[in-house]
Amino acid sequence: MTIQKKLAVVLSGCGVYDGAEIHEATLTMLAIAKAGASYTLFAPNITQHHVINHLTGEEMNESRNVLVESARIARGEIQDLKEYKAADFDALVFPGGFGAAKNLSTFAFEGPECSVNEDVELAVKSTVQAGKPIGALCITPAVITKILGKVDVTIGNDSGTAGAIEAMGGKHVQTTHGEIVIDRNYRVVSTPCYMLDATIDQIEIGARNVIKTILTMS
Amino acid sequence: MTIQKKLAVVLSGCGVYDGAEIHEATLTMLAIAKAGASYTLFAPNITQHHVINHLTGEEMNESRNVLVESARIARGEIQDLKEYKAADFDALVFPGGFGAAKNLSTFAFEGPECSVNEDVELAVKSTVQAGKPIGALCITPAVITKILGKVDVTIGNDSGTAGAIEAMGGKHVQTTHGEIVIDRNYRVVSTPCYMLDATIDQIEIGARNVIKTILTMS
Repeated sequence: MTIQKKLAVVLSGCGVYDGAEIHEATLTMLAIAKAGASYTLFAPNITQHHVINHLTGEEMNESRNVLVESARIARGEIQDLKEYKAADFDALVFPGGFGAAKNLSTFAFEGPECSVNEDVELAVKSTVQAGKPIGALCITPAVITKILGKVDVTIGNDSGTAGAIEAMGGKHVQTTHGEIVIDRNYRVVSTPCYMLDATIDQIEIGARNVIKTILTMS
Repeated sequence: MTIQKKLAVVLSGCGVYDGAEIHEATLTMLAIAKAGASYTLFAPNITQHHVINHLTGEEMNESRNVLVESARIARGEIQDLKEYKAADFDALVFPGGFGAAKNLSTFAFEGPECSVNEDVELAVKSTVQAGKPIGALCITPAVITKILGKVDVTIGNDSGTAGAIEAMGGKHVQTTHGEIVIDRNYRVVSTPCYMLDATIDQIEIGARNVIKTILTMS
């Protein structure tokens, strides 16, 4: 009898410009289900940095909560990230979207000098301490690097973001669609997804490659 | 040289309880891309019926716009449904979610006596008149039936919804995960998706079967 592996997935809202990137989140969940594992969704219970009108790109005079909006992607089945315990899961995964750089951290505004949400930091550090792998899509490797420091990651080929990762002590490895970078020390697996000008089927490949790889490491 | 087929996809917001079902929308887009076709996203430019907190299921004292929220799934690349012209596309597709029954129509509140948004009605009727196929996922076959009347569709096995479809003049065919029903007269292809208690990988199969089939009919 095979024991089904359990993955935790951390969302950061609902929508690329102020939250979790919806395709990356959905295709991460799909990749986990198709690999025969299960997922539990988490998000921090905090106010979003701001709300962006995704039609115009302009800021809206509204306030939304990261956990409540993430629940849209989760169909209501989601928990406060404070409840995450590394002991309960085989791996931790971060889909991308600006929410990672605006809600999970301040990377979008402060670059290498950013701060990271304390629940996110605790989740990453406790997972590393438990010797379990972490998957990081799109911009989230920058957040992971801020927490861990000396880690090999990829966000594709954007030189500004790559430079910020190096400034935080990480090593950036250039990649293209669907390729992954594995940090064997911290067991972090990253892929660029929409940090490149990608199509939705390329996102599926990137998410699948990350999930497949962390399942072999867990 | 093969000419790439162009599909129009109609969204109804962003989130299962008050808008488009996110997985169904995303996996419809994925299925289209993987089939080698292209998609253009549309939504009506109207106020949502209401806003539901997807964590608690309760109504929120907020107002959101269907086109603006749908733009989250679309990453900003979306058009007012008023701009849709059947002549420009090979097929029309409706992912599900309560948005179809609350924003695209009033089916959630009025059942067989519901009204349908005029842009949705015009899009469906002009597509039928052009002899082009329509894909309908989840609850959207009920909306299609309200517009077309005598049409064979499936929403899975929910007897209440099936009865309402029959009351509107349609014929409901019971199905399970991933199965489709084809109406050869109106060229409507439907599948239950989350109208059943489905997993995300079952949604992918249903969306793929609808897209594959309407591409062979277009």
